[in-house]
Amino acid sequence: MNIDSSSEDSLLRKIAASVRRSSKEAVSKTFLPSGIGDDAALFRPLPGHETVLTCDWFLEGTHFLRDKHPPDSVGWKCLARALSDIAAMGAIPRCFLLSLALPASLTGRWLDGFLGGLRRASRKFHCVLAGGDTTRRDQILINVTVVGEIPRRRALLRSGARPGDLLFVSGRLGGADCGLQLLKRSKSLVNPRNSLIRKHLYPVPRLALGQWLASKRLATAMMDLSDGLSSDLPRLCAASRLGARLEASKIPCVQIPARFRSAACEPLQLALHGGDDYELLFAVPPSRKNLVPRSFHGVSLTQIGVMTPERRIVLLEENARESPLPARGWDPFRSRRESI
Amino acid sequence: MNIDSSSEDSLLRKIAASVRRSSKEAVSKTFLPSGIGDDAALFRPLPGHETVLTCDWFLEGTHFLRDKHPPDSVGWKCLARALSDIAAMGAIPRCFLLSLALPASLTGRWLDGFLGGLRRASRKFHCVLAGGDTTRRDQILINVTVVGEIPRRRALLRSGARPGDLLFVSGRLGGADCGLQLLKRSKSLVNPRNSLIRKHLYPVPRLALGQWLASKRLATAMMDLSDGLSSDLPRLCAASRLGARLEASKIPCVQIPARFRSAACEPLQLALHGGDDYELLFAVPPSRKNLVPRSFHGVSLTQIGVMTPERRIVLLEENARESPLPARGWDPFRSRRESI
Repeated sequence: MNIDSSSEDSLLRKIAASVRRSSKEAVSKTFLPSGIGDDAALFRPLPGHETVLTCDWFLEGTHFLRDKHPPDSVGWKCLARALSDIAAMGAIPRCFLLSLALPASLTGRWLDGFLGGLRRASRKFHCVLAGGDTTRRDQILINVTVVGEIPRRRALLRSGARPGDLLFVSGRLGGADCGLQLLKRSKSLVNPRNSLIRKHLYPVPRLALGQWLASKRLATAMMDLSDGLSSDLPRLCAASRLGARLEASKIPCVQIPARFRSAACEPLQLALHGGDDYELLFAVPPSRKNLVPRSFHGVSLTQIGVMTPERRIVLLEENARESPLPARGWDPFRSRRESI
Repeated sequence: MNIDSSSEDSLLRKIAASVRRSSKEAVSKTFLPSGIGDDAALFRPLPGHETVLTCDWFLEGTHFLRDKHPPDSVGWKCLARALSDIAAMGAIPRCFLLSLALPASLTGRWLDGFLGGLRRASRKFHCVLAGGDTTRRDQILINVTVVGEIPRRRALLRSGARPGDLLFVSGRLGGADCGLQLLKRSKSLVNPRNSLIRKHLYPVPRLALGQWLASKRLATAMMDLSDGLSSDLPRLCAASRLGARLEASKIPCVQIPARFRSAACEPLQLALHGGDDYELLFAVPPSRKNLVPRSFHGVSLTQIGVMTPERRIVLLEENARESPLPARGWDPFRSRRESI
């Protein structure tokens, strides 16, 4: 039933009941003494820990399309991508705030699907809904704030890399962008069995990996890949006041089944410039290189380059030619690729 | 200069530099070890305190109008109204996250004005910008998350009121809505000297009052008035499983200069149903009534009614007639008053 004639309070109750009901976080009372229903949520921090805070837009037309993205995926992904920022610090997620604006006509079936995906992500990643804000709007607007925790001074920043540190990535790159191309080509809502489409619709934040790297002090700097390697690596380099040399042959590119191959889906280009992978990019001192396993919980870890004192980013191509790597990933303020 | 051809990173740097530059929070390093520039912000909580979390939409067309609201006011108000939720818990603000979506054409003068207002509010209320997210959009979309702190078990919830507790409000009610009416009638951007228009454009969260009430344990329940007394009081009553009786003659209504009076600006109706006042509504046990001063830091504190065991809200009118009080405040999901 839609809530056209009803009120914001009913909507808040529906969201709270739906996401709370299936979350097994009964223990949440210990760190969340008060959540939905007050002007603000109360969170009880762990002694000796720092609180990690991140917020993330997820907007219809900019980050997803109402007629292409199943509501379940929108619910999952809005939380998963914010959680990826928590993973990138090496932190443990605790709770989140959901700001949701949507048309009254979507407060029925669409909202149920959305809340289903949100609930699954909330449960899977042990991150409890603590509060939020709702309003009516002609388009679906979502903003998610996630609160995490990490023992003091253990957070991995972008700024800690040193010259000679080896650059690693988790997983394979370019899959999510390839999935998006397939999704856009399809004529209707897809049944998301295809692994590339799943990578785009249901990203998995690398929380366990991030926590492990932080707890073992293996990495000197880390970030997640949300806008694409060619856009994100310069941010890590700038924060560390360094450059980097990437080896094209080492980059673990998306594997594309022959029937999907086309100019728009060239694996290396997707791996360099495609967004939404939510893999981790991290720097490891050469002395600790051997402590990095080939894979962690089934996710491959691959060395793709090295941090350099020269503040530029170069790509060593398969023909042994070095060329500068231009930032061609997702940037909403660049006109070329301004929206999904 | 607009950032049309430039990138999201430049925009983030502009925001960070602008809001940080004038904030005198050098001490913030002690509780904010890392802010803008990483995947997430790090916040170091005070021992023995709970963290208070709130988020708030502030959307063009829903909450403000680009051609009526000065950008400086948009910057001030988006933070001030979120801070009002911190005040409503009795907490101390610490830092905030800004999610901002806007057209590239507004990244010049409009953004400068916006950041000016945001900076003033940030400085005035000692709340430091810790991070955020930006994207491009045809309309201005804002979401603010504020993080505050309060000593353990001191937070004032909506649920603590008991039958017989006296209901108080701070300040005068209805001024902000009256200011909005005047603003909408004006033909262009207003020069905000008029005190009613100022109340709408530059609300002041009652932080000191909230903190004082919490620290003295004077109130049993509290909330802020953002949607209007007739919409907000039922929320406090529902949370406390009680009702309330209001006395119309006691409600401190907006004082409207004769030249502005009209049917649309009837003081009692504005005080009952007008939104955006950001005053505090709180319940005080009769035994502690005399500890509540007539005013606090220049803001009047007025007893307007009493909490009752019967779960309904009645208004005792000047003619001694009692009538139920319908919720007629701001609610985006009710069709009657769906937007500004």
